[in-house]
Amino acid sequence: MFRAVDVIEKKRDGKRLSTEEIAFFVDGFTRSTIADYQMSAFLMAVLLRGMDPRETTDLTMAMVSSGERLDLSEFGRVVDKHSTGGVGDKTTLIVAPLVAACGLPVGKMSGRGLGFSGGTLDKLESIPGYRVQLTTEEFLRQLRHIGIVLAGQTKDLAPADGAMYALRDVTGTVPSIPLIASSVMSKKIAGGAQAVVLDVKVGRGAFMKDLPSARRLARLMVQIGKLASVEVVAELTDMDQPLGRAVGNSLEVAEAIATLRGEGPDDLVALTIAAGAEMLLVGKRARTAAQAKDMIERAIADRSGLGKFRELVDAQGGDVRYVDDPLRLPRARRIREIHAPRAGYVADVAADAIGMASLRLGAGREKKGDPIDHATGAVLHVKVGSRVAKGDVLAEVHLDDRSSDEEGFALVARAFRLSPRRVRPRRLILARVA
Amino acid sequence: MFRAVDVIEKKRDGKRLSTEEIAFFVDGFTRSTIADYQMSAFLMAVLLRGMDPRETTDLTMAMVSSGERLDLSEFGRVVDKHSTGGVGDKTTLIVAPLVAACGLPVGKMSGRGLGFSGGTLDKLESIPGYRVQLTTEEFLRQLRHIGIVLAGQTKDLAPADGAMYALRDVTGTVPSIPLIASSVMSKKIAGGAQAVVLDVKVGRGAFMKDLPSARRLARLMVQIGKLASVEVVAELTDMDQPLGRAVGNSLEVAEAIATLRGEGPDDLVALTIAAGAEMLLVGKRARTAAQAKDMIERAIADRSGLGKFRELVDAQGGDVRYVDDPLRLPRARRIREIHAPRAGYVADVAADAIGMASLRLGAGREKKGDPIDHATGAVLHVKVGSRVAKGDVLAEVHLDDRSSDEEGFALVARAFRLSPRRVRPRRLILARVA
Repeated sequence: MFRAVDVIEKKRDGKRLSTEEIAFFVDGFTRSTIADYQMSAFLMAVLLRGMDPRETTDLTMAMVSSGERLDLSEFGRVVDKHSTGGVGDKTTLIVAPLVAACGLPVGKMSGRGLGFSGGTLDKLESIPGYRVQLTTEEFLRQLRHIGIVLAGQTKDLAPADGAMYALRDVTGTVPSIPLIASSVMSKKIAGGAQAVVLDVKVGRGAFMKDLPSARRLARLMVQIGKLASVEVVAELTDMDQPLGRAVGNSLEVAEAIATLRGEGPDDLVALTIAAGAEMLLVGKRARTAAQAKDMIERAIADRSGLGKFRELVDAQGGDVRYVDDPLRLPRARRIREIHAPRAGYVADVAADAIGMASLRLGAGREKKGDPIDHATGAVLHVKVGSRVAKGDVLAEVHLDDRSSDEEGFALVARAFRLSPRRVRPRRLILARVA
Repeated sequence: MFRAVDVIEKKRDGKRLSTEEIAFFVDGFTRSTIADYQMSAFLMAVLLRGMDPRETTDLTMAMVSSGERLDLSEFGRVVDKHSTGGVGDKTTLIVAPLVAACGLPVGKMSGRGLGFSGGTLDKLESIPGYRVQLTTEEFLRQLRHIGIVLAGQTKDLAPADGAMYALRDVTGTVPSIPLIASSVMSKKIAGGAQAVVLDVKVGRGAFMKDLPSARRLARLMVQIGKLASVEVVAELTDMDQPLGRAVGNSLEVAEAIATLRGEGPDDLVALTIAAGAEMLLVGKRARTAAQAKDMIERAIADRSGLGKFRELVDAQGGDVRYVDDPLRLPRARRIREIHAPRAGYVADVAADAIGMASLRLGAGREKKGDPIDHATGAVLHVKVGSRVAKGDVLAEVHLDDRSSDEEGFALVARAFRLSPRRVRPRRLILARVA
């Protein structure tokens, strides 16, 4: 028999754990025979000593085994999408309906946001009536019926991951590539995915600050996928400036709807097409990249993606009038503009500062369970490389009369840096790992 | 304000913690505003990232501040003694009464044993009636009255240390030099010591397996002492073979009494004189090492140390007839001898094997709260370097009809290694750090 303390000591000493030791540890934690203080010591040892891809896959599969595993085989090849998270990232809201409109079912479980702005669920809840908590039966019925679901994670899927994440959050053990990779992959695998398109964000507004560490994370997830028989394709994309123009919950929903109408900002449209095409490819709905892109572009142009989004909102109890007329979405009490102090080129829009600002404005939550303001946020009028005249609007800040409004406004203002010289726009898609 | 997770992260990233951060963390843990799972992650980070002497001193003093601090100033300069623990180490039982007989008061709080054989308290409880749990008032009254107390730690002294040790035991965070040093020093300082004589054991039967790591621990404790205004003198002594001849609770008490009568084995007598002399020196009861040694030797020769031990037992409710006639002490049901299979020289008496054996024989406890058998153990008839003829008794094993007796017996037998060539006796006192 294994003992918890022996497993901790082995990892502490930098040794490789066996498949059985990892399964024993995660299983014991799930059954509460291994205490949370033992798990947190283990997590710190993993963070500082690392885990190789085989161990990380074992950890992933042990977390999958801690709960139910959704069987989506009736839907053929099921593809999930995951973003490691960034400021202004509303891609799921756009890509999921577009891909579903192309005939690939998307049954996706998302999370709430922590730090920075809200998560996909928080954004969707900007639409009055939208129900994020579905039962497994409701989830499957809707997926059969309209080919798209965007709902919350059920507690039965990878419960060990949820419990471990809660511990990591308060014990300084979040930033570990093996722990991040296994957490993401365990949820995807438990959720029934046979293929996953990953968007690994890189830059100041993302968890991974530089390309090498983002590449390490992407490669590890691809390797886990190989060992666990799940196809994983990762795109590494820029998160040094926010994605698109809108940051904040209903502001992002409005931008997502605009994008589905063919009126999205360039970077968001480009990322949408890239991610959507990858999903169609790994989902075997397209044979070539060109064909896949074409399908996504068509689903925007003919508004079939928008129609699918409307169906989704309707199916989950949301009021579709808000989709038809996004101006109805919750709006902040006041809008203040930030103006260019002089003419020049935008050299910098610091995603981390905008993210922090959205927290101060109430659009994000600092800790689990905090309420969220769906109306506040910021709309950026320029991107890195934009040319501005003195007095041009750089951004509008949407405020709801909070004591931290000034702080939030100042953070947005300080995010911009102007240069007298021409600045090249940033590259968006930096690399692909498969 | 500090946040627990920030302190953990700082140590995780290998940075130095400030005095305030360490105080905040230990204090929060004591008040339960910092959870045990946060403490265990912190302890793992300390184990893997280390702490410098200033941080370790701050940790020590924070643990001292978690509870009461005994005021022994009325007794003048108070000297404590601490051994890092080894197999057959009954030195406290001998040194404390000898030093007290020389006029230096010894009010010592000891622990119970974990692993290997019992601790000082377990050994003393071999004497029927001996009460180890005294109130602070009883402790002080007895120290005033007869100048010696050997009792258990009160819960009010360095409670954070007790709680942290309990966590370390089950989270793989015991073997950290800063954590060991701060744990020992916090108890000594809270116990009112102004000077401490440390016996750092080195070898297979000790926590520190080699001289360099023992030296590191000793130096760190001396440094903590300097920073905390407590004089610390450390002796590094051999624990590759057991100390003395007796291993087991009442067997060791009998050997301690024999040593106080002037009939102790050479190594135990040598260590007793060395440690006792150090205590008299740092306690300013002797001016030179030669004078100090002479005083201890006299306290053995004139039996004043034995008389002090008798007073001690009497004062704490023990039956002094057991001191006068140690044959009355609890005895095991059966004694089995181990014989030399051939003539030769004893090349090895593996202290770790003898320690494990004493556990199997019931003389030690595997986990806190386990009962202990006061009667069982082993008496070694030879030491490394001894010359033996075929059939000579190497050891006698004292058994109480346990299912694990065979295993214990075999472990003792396997601890001995004979060589056809002459073997040099081991050096006992390896180094001194002050």
